[in-house]
Amino acid sequence: MAAKARDVLHLPSTAAEALAPYLPASPPAPALPFTTLTFATSLDSALSLAPGTQTALSGPQSKAMTHYLRSKHQGILVGVGTAEADDPSLNCRIEGVGGYGGEGLAGQPRPVVVDPAQRWVFAGTEKGFAKCLRLALAGQGLAPWVVVAEETGVDEGRRMVLEETCGGKIVRVRTREDGKMAWRDVLAKLREEGMESVMVEGGAGVINRLLEPDNLELVNSVIVTIAPTWLGQGGVVVSPARRVDGDEKPLAAARLEHVRWLPMEEDVVLCGKLMG
Amino acid sequence: MAAKARDVLHLPSTAAEALAPYLPASPPAPALPFTTLTFATSLDSALSLAPGTQTALSGPQSKAMTHYLRSKHQGILVGVGTAEADDPSLNCRIEGVGGYGGEGLAGQPRPVVVDPAQRWVFAGTEKGFAKCLRLALAGQGLAPWVVVAEETGVDEGRRMVLEETCGGKIVRVRTREDGKMAWRDVLAKLREEGMESVMVEGGAGVINRLLEPDNLELVNSVIVTIAPTWLGQGGVVVSPARRVDGDEKPLAAARLEHVRWLPMEEDVVLCGKLMG
Repeated sequence: MAAKARDVLHLPSTAAEALAPYLPASPPAPALPFTTLTFATSLDSALSLAPGTQTALSGPQSKAMTHYLRSKHQGILVGVGTAEADDPSLNCRIEGVGGYGGEGLAGQPRPVVVDPAQRWVFAGTEKGFAKCLRLALAGQGLAPWVVVAEETGVDEGRRMVLEETCGGKIVRVRTREDGKMAWRDVLAKLREEGMESVMVEGGAGVINRLLEPDNLELVNSVIVTIAPTWLGQGGVVVSPARRVDGDEKPLAAARLEHVRWLPMEEDVVLCGKLMG
Repeated sequence: MAAKARDVLHLPSTAAEALAPYLPASPPAPALPFTTLTFATSLDSALSLAPGTQTALSGPQSKAMTHYLRSKHQGILVGVGTAEADDPSLNCRIEGVGGYGGEGLAGQPRPVVVDPAQRWVFAGTEKGFAKCLRLALAGQGLAPWVVVAEETGVDEGRRMVLEETCGGKIVRVRTREDGKMAWRDVLAKLREEGMESVMVEGGAGVINRLLEPDNLELVNSVIVTIAPTWLGQGGVVVSPARRVDGDEKPLAAARLEHVRWLPMEEDVVLCGKLMG
């Protein structure tokens, strides 16, 4: 199915060139994918006005940039909360990729939904299937991988819909002693499954965890769009857990280096690398 | 007393030119000063790591920019919490102003501390006087005006130190029915006292109040420095009170227009005008 022209996005080449130093490099590390953390916030670091709501923050050019970035990664990862709240497309609509002017599914990233307890309802919804499954069936995106905790039994009906009908996959990741999956294990598993680069898009829970000290080294690039608005108190906020020194004095949680700020219309795009 | 050379700051002329559209214009409104809201935050919108602590966020060039802005305003305003926590200089150290290469006190702004209940201890401290008073006595800044609630009796000893010894002033502002001073009244009073432009620098309480709907029209320009760091949860945060529509649905609290983003070393400086 051909995309409507109005859906196709375009990014000026100057912007693309400025982003180059922050894009996946080849060859990737043997054990982990090249991981880019990317999201859009308000000036008060909010992703949305309230939990479970989607808030349009970034303008047309920064939106095109996000889709350009998607075309440069093999996977796009979100947490289950975002999959539930936004029913996101998780495909790439930049000019020239498969389904948007290009052949087949060339340049389309693989959606990855991290859903340890398998609570994401991707079939039998009001619209039949979740949007990213519908796009896969329409030839405008790849079907998602759903990352689940190894211990959780997989319902055969769910597996059938995802794998047989849509061409997606259930990916099982072990849990640690605390009963949770570690981000290192999730990313290593994606690499083991052949994914060489992944763009982590949200939500706040996922982002804040990846900005904690133990996970900083998993992130190769950070690209944040900031819109010139304050959403106000009560929003869903990116702000990692507090860090303290030996005397319990607070420290900055994370800092970027190799920083570049790219103004894009009303927004700014911040590119950087996390300091170890 | 001459300033040490290392204290003198310099801003490149290109940066100064880019800031021009956001600086006080003459003639000012007859009833209110030209008011600029300016502050530096982390990516998670924090001014500091914890209440009562000062956190260095911005780099040398954005610091020089702040001092350049100070030279373009007749007053610099902070709330009493900031005066207590930071013991700020509230003078201007840009190259060429009085005390920093220039004659007398030319280009030095008037510090204004908003202290309704007169809790600021500016004399008899560990170092004798608060820093901005010491700078005034040393000829490197103007003595502060302290804005107090009209109803509060002024201690004669306090008045003597501030007015007779240092050359500052107590400025009385009426309170409204809720027992509080309104920002409109504070700014109108400063204008009545001859102040044609004022730069509001903090802290979070002051900034968040000025970003509320009733006060947006009091602010003529907004200039925010953003540093590429996340301070983490528990910081002192700029985020105005939640706004809702008629159905109690949340709305963005405030948005800027006529936006310009100026990268300055590792930081970015955001200039804009609040949308009414």
